[in-house]
Amino acid sequence: MKHVIIVGGGFAGLNAAKILGNKTDIRVTLLDNHNHHLFQPLLYQVAMAALSPAEIAVPIRRILAGYRNITVLQDEVIGVDLRQRTVTARECGLHYDYLLLACGVKHAYFGHEEWEEHAPGLKTIEQATEIRRRVLSVFEAAERISDCGNQLKHLTFVIVGGGPTGVELAGAIGEICRYTLTKDFRNINPRQARIILIEAGPRILPSFSADLADKAAHDLAALGVQVRTSSPVTDIDSKGVQIGGERLEASTILWAAGVEASPIGRSMGVATDRLGRIVVEADLSIKNHPEVFAAGDLANFSHGRATPLPGLAPVALQQGRFIARNILRETAGKARRDFRYLDKGQMATIGRSNAIIELGSLRFKGFFAWLAWVVIHIYYLISFENKFFVTLHWVWSFFNFRRGARLIINKEWRFYRKNAAGENQEGGNSKQA
Amino acid sequence: MKHVIIVGGGFAGLNAAKILGNKTDIRVTLLDNHNHHLFQPLLYQVAMAALSPAEIAVPIRRILAGYRNITVLQDEVIGVDLRQRTVTARECGLHYDYLLLACGVKHAYFGHEEWEEHAPGLKTIEQATEIRRRVLSVFEAAERISDCGNQLKHLTFVIVGGGPTGVELAGAIGEICRYTLTKDFRNINPRQARIILIEAGPRILPSFSADLADKAAHDLAALGVQVRTSSPVTDIDSKGVQIGGERLEASTILWAAGVEASPIGRSMGVATDRLGRIVVEADLSIKNHPEVFAAGDLANFSHGRATPLPGLAPVALQQGRFIARNILRETAGKARRDFRYLDKGQMATIGRSNAIIELGSLRFKGFFAWLAWVVIHIYYLISFENKFFVTLHWVWSFFNFRRGARLIINKEWRFYRKNAAGENQEGGNSKQA
Repeated sequence: MKHVIIVGGGFAGLNAAKILGNKTDIRVTLLDNHNHHLFQPLLYQVAMAALSPAEIAVPIRRILAGYRNITVLQDEVIGVDLRQRTVTARECGLHYDYLLLACGVKHAYFGHEEWEEHAPGLKTIEQATEIRRRVLSVFEAAERISDCGNQLKHLTFVIVGGGPTGVELAGAIGEICRYTLTKDFRNINPRQARIILIEAGPRILPSFSADLADKAAHDLAALGVQVRTSSPVTDIDSKGVQIGGERLEASTILWAAGVEASPIGRSMGVATDRLGRIVVEADLSIKNHPEVFAAGDLANFSHGRATPLPGLAPVALQQGRFIARNILRETAGKARRDFRYLDKGQMATIGRSNAIIELGSLRFKGFFAWLAWVVIHIYYLISFENKFFVTLHWVWSFFNFRRGARLIINKEWRFYRKNAAGENQEGGNSKQA
Repeated sequence: MKHVIIVGGGFAGLNAAKILGNKTDIRVTLLDNHNHHLFQPLLYQVAMAALSPAEIAVPIRRILAGYRNITVLQDEVIGVDLRQRTVTARECGLHYDYLLLACGVKHAYFGHEEWEEHAPGLKTIEQATEIRRRVLSVFEAAERISDCGNQLKHLTFVIVGGGPTGVELAGAIGEICRYTLTKDFRNINPRQARIILIEAGPRILPSFSADLADKAAHDLAALGVQVRTSSPVTDIDSKGVQIGGERLEASTILWAAGVEASPIGRSMGVATDRLGRIVVEADLSIKNHPEVFAAGDLANFSHGRATPLPGLAPVALQQGRFIARNILRETAGKARRDFRYLDKGQMATIGRSNAIIELGSLRFKGFFAWLAWVVIHIYYLISFENKFFVTLHWVWSFFNFRRGARLIINKEWRFYRKNAAGENQEGGNSKQA
């Protein structure tokens, strides 16, 4: 009985587990520090109040409940001993025969971690609800005051980073201001909000072709988004961002400018790239450790390619499945194969009914690209229940411009709080910290 | 133009606002410290992972968007000056001609506010998601360890308070253990969980007739819930509860044992009862201040009754509408009327397909009571969108025992955190605090 440990319940880990599920002579333990698989490509829709967290997140153990040879543990892996073949988590230690590392990336602030407080990134449900809280709260704050200058300061949104996430966030905020909120306020006109998308490089969407990126920039402008390229951010504080000598005041700053890999690769002393991703062999194993694999965003796979494979869901999904099949081949006494990526292209949405899609030389944009985007995303949503509700929710929202999850949920749940002196104090659990 | 200020966007405030909406010579400002109206009767379903927060909460300003004479402000009221007729909130001060206070109750710990940390109550979305996090997390913790004795300690749930909320929480936990989670774990059997409902008085559901309460206790037992009456809790800490000399170890303690009114009544120096509720006149106004009203859970209305009206949604709803109509009568030069409550009865669910209903001498229980409960609750859910999705979600859950919102969402969204010394530290934003 071979014990396969999978670290991470994202696209790579979950799809590997499914291939190994109910196979004889294989026992699987999947470790994740969250209890849910998160459908990352739709996370920005939670941050933008269009979907509820539960619509894009499913308990990992529910997805895998039918596979009796798989144990799911919610725990955080803190170390791997390649020689002893053990994984150490906060609450347990386990021995493996095969190990699949697929614990992904987090956003990175290029050494300025103190910026996170002022400019949250978007990788987890917690971050998405925090961004939703901030975005919705500034409209509430602006409605409370009557001074127009101050209102505008409240209604300035800066998004740092012009990749797909930054574009999707900026487009969604533009749409919220133009359509969703227009009738809901008395003292402000949400259409007057300033939305600024800042990109350090010469153009947005650098992974797309220049003409599609141009069109996207044009469509963003139509939603009221001001795109600023070649503008590296040099500082961020609670009141705005600094771009070299220029100061931009903003009440809401969102970070979509960069990621780095989970620190696990560096901690193991194996070959990693500049982002901390594990450099893998042609079969996705780690050099000199054929029993250890890395997949998804955590892996740097460059074989036969000019640049490493990008951090996209199809890459992770294919790699997870591929590794599981190689393990099955090997335990059946067959030879391993090398990984080949079947390119599924890339896409990004701009607002409610517009998207860009690029697959090799095939490029298209507009409503049909958006329809394709919707169909593909629903298809890949892992659990049937979620597909069903997300579809309904989208159809509903499409026709009435509503956003069904416009909740400001605070971080503090307590009503009675201890103050610094240790005395009890009534809190009013709705106050924003 | 008369200015009506409504404090609180619950059943009373919202229904008053709707009556006053688009009426000539009336201007309304509704203040609430949350941005959403919360459908309180279903809040335990969020805590029990059956519904998502957005399915029972709707932005107040969206509900009232069509009434151009109503301004909604998210702000917390901290004082009322009855003589000057002004309301002071954290961010603004306003003058009123009529004032409706409807800011409800919070749970109370009988002077032991330090218990809240260990035994959260259920009044807000934040508290519901906190309870959900705690309940789901102990199953995860139990799955991680292999020692059976420790597993059972993790899987002991204590609910303090045998009113409808306590009964609904205990029944739902019983059902989760018996049906929802059975296939999802490998190291534990969720059916072995201990669920203990503790009531200080001689029986549970004291507001219901004794025979219905008996039947409810019997049905709870069938779901694995141990009911302990005449057991006043004397202490609560992180590891369990104390009932006089007896100690009950428990990983999860939930508080459903008592409420007290918003402190606003006491701060105004008007007549209040022992729970801080404002004692109101027959027309729901405050003595000597006919321009100020209280409604819903915040009001103590005892005219022609042996006991004050209970804290139920129909009471709040009828009172809110009644006050608004009296204001309209008065501004039209007509005389006020006195409030009469049209009794809508009371109900409580026990698990998935069982409920008790009592309306005067009419009493029934079982599946048809539960069906009635479902129909009535969907009917009253304020926004159409929510009714629609909640209905679907319920139909879906009923047939497959699923709970669609089984998410453990943490309190901390940051990845990089400052430690006490002020240095940056990598956090792992999934760690439970």
